[in-house]
Amino acid sequence: MGAIRYELLHVCKQTGARRGRIYTPHGIIETPTFMPVGTQATVKSMSQDELKEMLDARIILGNTYHLYLRPGHKLIEKAGGLHKFMNWDRAILTDSGGFQVFSLGSLRKITEEGVEFKSHLDGSAHFISPEISMEIQNCLGSDIMMAFDECVEYGADYDYTKKSMEMTTRWAQRCKDYHKNIEKQALFGIVQGGMFEDLRKQSVKDLIAMNFPGYAIGGLSIGEPEEKMYEILTYTAPLLPADKPRYLMGVGTPDYLIESAMRGIDMCDCVIQTRIARNGTAFTSKGKVTVRNANYAEDFTPLDDECDCYTCTHHTKAYLRHLVKCNEILGARLLTIHNLKFTMNLMENVRKAIEEDRLLDFRNKFYAKYGYNK
Amino acid sequence: MGAIRYELLHVCKQTGARRGRIYTPHGIIETPTFMPVGTQATVKSMSQDELKEMLDARIILGNTYHLYLRPGHKLIEKAGGLHKFMNWDRAILTDSGGFQVFSLGSLRKITEEGVEFKSHLDGSAHFISPEISMEIQNCLGSDIMMAFDECVEYGADYDYTKKSMEMTTRWAQRCKDYHKNIEKQALFGIVQGGMFEDLRKQSVKDLIAMNFPGYAIGGLSIGEPEEKMYEILTYTAPLLPADKPRYLMGVGTPDYLIESAMRGIDMCDCVIQTRIARNGTAFTSKGKVTVRNANYAEDFTPLDDECDCYTCTHHTKAYLRHLVKCNEILGARLLTIHNLKFTMNLMENVRKAIEEDRLLDFRNKFYAKYGYNK
Repeated sequence: MGAIRYELLHVCKQTGARRGRIYTPHGIIETPTFMPVGTQATVKSMSQDELKEMLDARIILGNTYHLYLRPGHKLIEKAGGLHKFMNWDRAILTDSGGFQVFSLGSLRKITEEGVEFKSHLDGSAHFISPEISMEIQNCLGSDIMMAFDECVEYGADYDYTKKSMEMTTRWAQRCKDYHKNIEKQALFGIVQGGMFEDLRKQSVKDLIAMNFPGYAIGGLSIGEPEEKMYEILTYTAPLLPADKPRYLMGVGTPDYLIESAMRGIDMCDCVIQTRIARNGTAFTSKGKVTVRNANYAEDFTPLDDECDCYTCTHHTKAYLRHLVKCNEILGARLLTIHNLKFTMNLMENVRKAIEEDRLLDFRNKFYAKYGYNK
Repeated sequence: MGAIRYELLHVCKQTGARRGRIYTPHGIIETPTFMPVGTQATVKSMSQDELKEMLDARIILGNTYHLYLRPGHKLIEKAGGLHKFMNWDRAILTDSGGFQVFSLGSLRKITEEGVEFKSHLDGSAHFISPEISMEIQNCLGSDIMMAFDECVEYGADYDYTKKSMEMTTRWAQRCKDYHKNIEKQALFGIVQGGMFEDLRKQSVKDLIAMNFPGYAIGGLSIGEPEEKMYEILTYTAPLLPADKPRYLMGVGTPDYLIESAMRGIDMCDCVIQTRIARNGTAFTSKGKVTVRNANYAEDFTPLDDECDCYTCTHHTKAYLRHLVKCNEILGARLLTIHNLKFTMNLMENVRKAIEEDRLLDFRNKFYAKYGYNK
């Protein structure tokens, strides 16, 4: 039967957005969902209990490239898998390592066989192929694994993009052939094809023929204008099977999350919530707030007076600013809690709006206060 | 009358250690107690709720020097005091700023009037006198304030130490004269006198004549051999009034805490628990464990199998080591939680042992496993 199952509960009459549920070996995920990123077996600054109790996160990400280098997938396998290693009993999705390896730029070399690269930690030489990525992800034991793909840079020409997309498709087949643990780990294929409609369509067609339990759209939010991203999403997502989950990789600002849901996306992930938190910036119902700024020095009100998170119910902007200015860990923690909870609340509201066929109204109301594209 | 009251509950028949209680405007402190240090209005990496729920901390420290520079005592006064600023409704003790200012070395100049110094943050020039220290601490609104004193360096000669001790006594009088908020904030005098018995005794005598609601012993654990510290404690502590709390400043390794309690000390504070945690080192019932070490890479057992803290009940040494090696915030958090909880548990056991007249037995049993002086 496979490791996961997707149930489509409702399609929003205003937008076509999908309200669904993914059943995994480690619990149920209500979709559309936002997945906090736990690159190195920790969602930066959060404890696993806080992810559950404060955020009710149902699924988090792990990064294969990072975990392969440190502490090593064999060590994690000895610990009993990533769930046990980090003591997280809900669902985990791991990426393939592909995106991180390609991001190394001059430190890597791509061939049909796989990718040679040098570690960003110590410069040591490594090689990851589709088979090795599967081997690593099998050791990690994630509920959802990603196929090893090439994500071309923004600006890549048609010819390079076409060849790369075709190789990604061959790699997807090699991943599928290698991966045996299909009752416990679901392998998703990744649609590539850059900024070209015919290549995106070809990629979807070839991947669907392999019958993956879920599909991701890769190679977006990499520098293209946002209209371009929305255009590609608009024609790509509907081509994917209605009975499988659709994951848009690396996308996570509030406006992107809403726009993606409207275009039929079920899953998103992004590091922006936790990254800007550590720099002292928060998403709020009235737009971004950089609490580090001097004008908040004597502001004894919460970050967001509409937010019910731990931070907003316990502390003032003045205190947060002080902590951030002093580089205190608690500052990073409190802003991370807020940014993640803000995003989880947003997704809950998106899900409710879909159920009630009013996602377009919700979006317009949200932008009226938040501002667009922030 | 006054802000605080000390109640002596029991004296250990084996050691003379004191089991007591300090009643403050923000709750009751069971003594002997260890006070976590919250230098910049945060106990590094901990939330205020964790200090309560995980540790049952009854009192924490704030550092006047740091809070004066950042965010500034006037800002904290506007917030309604330090309790409100950081949202902590239990007791707070603030130091005088003296120790930090003297630690600046060449950046400060001491006169009878006070101390000129340059900020460690931006080199800007400042001046703190006994009166200014009181003014700052009044703005912070701590339950226990410390008199502004000079802590002489280890190795200072008799003549310098004598003159300094006499100035500290005059400064204590100036603090007492300036401080008016005595119903809400208790001012403690600080015994100085370096390594010289007659000077320590003179200091105690002069301070007792001023009738402070509590007394601290300063200028210890600054580099002297530990036997010297114990010798000074042994002759100094009994000279202090039995009906007032006794605070040994800046002391906090497990062995020092036990030895201090045995010599009649009621309160201690130290940054070592939180500092070594951030470097990946833990106090455990079997001595110090540096979890960063390679031999823990595949150790899937808890840090301390006798510990009931969040960290030991949720995570393995292998996971902690991974987090510490990756400089992940959660690593610092988990080790801080453990080190503080280990210390709080130790103090609870010390209090029980005093009540049952067996603190010497407890000490010997503790050292048998922990090792001495670690």
